[in-house]
Amino acid sequence: MDYVVGLDVGGTTMKGGLVTRDGEVTAFEGRPTGREEGPQAVVEAVRAYSGELVELGTARFGAPPAGIGLAVPGIVTASTAVYAANIGWRNVPASAFVPEGIPTRLGHDVQTGGLAESVLGAGREADDFLFLPIGTGIAGAVIIKGEPYGGARGWGGEIGHAPVWPTGEKCACGQVGCLETYASASAVARRFETRTGRTATAKEVVALAAAGDQVAAQVFGEAVEALSISLATYVLLLDPSVIVLGGGLGEAGRVLFDPLEEQLAGRLAFRDAPPLRQAALGMRAGMLGAALLGWRAAGAFDVGRGWSLDVLRGGRVS
Amino acid sequence: MDYVVGLDVGGTTMKGGLVTRDGEVTAFEGRPTGREEGPQAVVEAVRAYSGELVELGTARFGAPPAGIGLAVPGIVTASTAVYAANIGWRNVPASAFVPEGIPTRLGHDVQTGGLAESVLGAGREADDFLFLPIGTGIAGAVIIKGEPYGGARGWGGEIGHAPVWPTGEKCACGQVGCLETYASASAVARRFETRTGRTATAKEVVALAAAGDQVAAQVFGEAVEALSISLATYVLLLDPSVIVLGGGLGEAGRVLFDPLEEQLAGRLAFRDAPPLRQAALGMRAGMLGAALLGWRAAGAFDVGRGWSLDVLRGGRVS
Repeated sequence: MDYVVGLDVGGTTMKGGLVTRDGEVTAFEGRPTGREEGPQAVVEAVRAYSGELVELGTARFGAPPAGIGLAVPGIVTASTAVYAANIGWRNVPASAFVPEGIPTRLGHDVQTGGLAESVLGAGREADDFLFLPIGTGIAGAVIIKGEPYGGARGWGGEIGHAPVWPTGEKCACGQVGCLETYASASAVARRFETRTGRTATAKEVVALAAAGDQVAAQVFGEAVEALSISLATYVLLLDPSVIVLGGGLGEAGRVLFDPLEEQLAGRLAFRDAPPLRQAALGMRAGMLGAALLGWRAAGAFDVGRGWSLDVLRGGRVS
Repeated sequence: MDYVVGLDVGGTTMKGGLVTRDGEVTAFEGRPTGREEGPQAVVEAVRAYSGELVELGTARFGAPPAGIGLAVPGIVTASTAVYAANIGWRNVPASAFVPEGIPTRLGHDVQTGGLAESVLGAGREADDFLFLPIGTGIAGAVIIKGEPYGGARGWGGEIGHAPVWPTGEKCACGQVGCLETYASASAVARRFETRTGRTATAKEVVALAAAGDQVAAQVFGEAVEALSISLATYVLLLDPSVIVLGGGLGEAGRVLFDPLEEQLAGRLAFRDAPPLRQAALGMRAGMLGAALLGWRAAGAFDVGRGWSLDVLRGGRVS
């Protein structure tokens, strides 16, 4: 049976899978990138892992994969990993990550996750939407006509570093008042610790806020307010039909969605707000998007659009 | 010779022209829409004017036009003028604006101007850019792969009402801290008058600022600062290759471009800013874009890309 290898390369972990043309998904446990040993070690770790996945697939399906897709961080084109701050590599060609002779395509990590949500996930019914994973950092995938759009050079989607309070707090990126510095999971944890001296994860801060802790409620409230400002700007500029929230904080549920919906509507005077929706694919979005890129590398651009979500849910994890 | 009619319908004035397949432009003087007599009167005025242009074209070229394009304000699809606040119409079909039997296409006014700048003007060499006319109000055309992009329902481009200072001044639109309420030509004039009691046009405020008037410099400086915040957000989100400024204030020249370039660069810590460029087509962008829509109504989608700018400059004005 035809299949591809999908590989989601994060800063610290990479997640691989085998995905058939009909949407049978075999996802594997994550594996460390070993980035503490430098960028060359990460390239070798990716190459070793992709080689193993090719061998596993060949043993199972009787042939090498039709293609390989890789989601990688930083600046990336379809054929080159140009730069990643958290890994340190520069201009690594796609061929360096994979065994010889298999068509390969690279994609930006968040954009590749957005592609998966567009084709298979919460954006299935939408052509134009924002995919916004809220994790350690914040970056978005601008989905236009079903496809992630990166702008002139592919550097777009940096909504996490667009200013929400232009005279606000200094962000680690060097700019001032960025969304990320108020609303990322690490920002929520950091700002709670600054005010209380207590350490807590973002999830714990959200739970404390729901339980009536005033400082937690204030910190979480400022995160929601910052998000509502950024989303209002996005809506006015790009008129999405839906906003898909993902990542750790994006999965906080009604405790996030209720106040965010209310504040976003309150910031839009002459138009309504699009609905907010939770991402459907969770941590697997990157790997599944990478598999779709693998199919595109093999020349198959429509694979995935016909899969039922049940097929995805039924995918076994080995 | 093949030609089309292009008609730019503004709130108070409409501008018509005849444009041949080779880019020979005959532009006519503006004519009032008569909106003080209600939306139906405007529709009739447009229809009368388009009828005259068809007759003029037929007399000159020996045949009716291949198509008609109209740029109209408000919410619009290719076949219907859905709503315009400044005129008051609702759901006017394209056929109501033109003589029978000629293929017709409508476009949003700013997006149609952006199409003209993309195909013929300052965005010729760029696929992905922002066209931002700064006039009485502010709206932008998001150009993606050479074409204006309006989002899921075509309501996008409202950068003038995206918040720059979320706790700032109340905007006429009902929202708070919108770009337009600081940086439009009318905002600059209004804010100068509020602080000094003196009336002056935006152009005069800019001249006063350049001549050392402190209040004028402050008002104009705040407009530039607001613009730099909005443009930083746009750049981070959509990575345009150039930003094209138009409209009355956008043509202020170096006195605007110099501080705006500096401040925009200052708000981008981890990437460079795209160049700012002045719009090339001035007040004619809407009519020329409408003519391109007329060619598209006629089934000719590539007309305009090959025209030389000299052809445009040489277009005679009757």
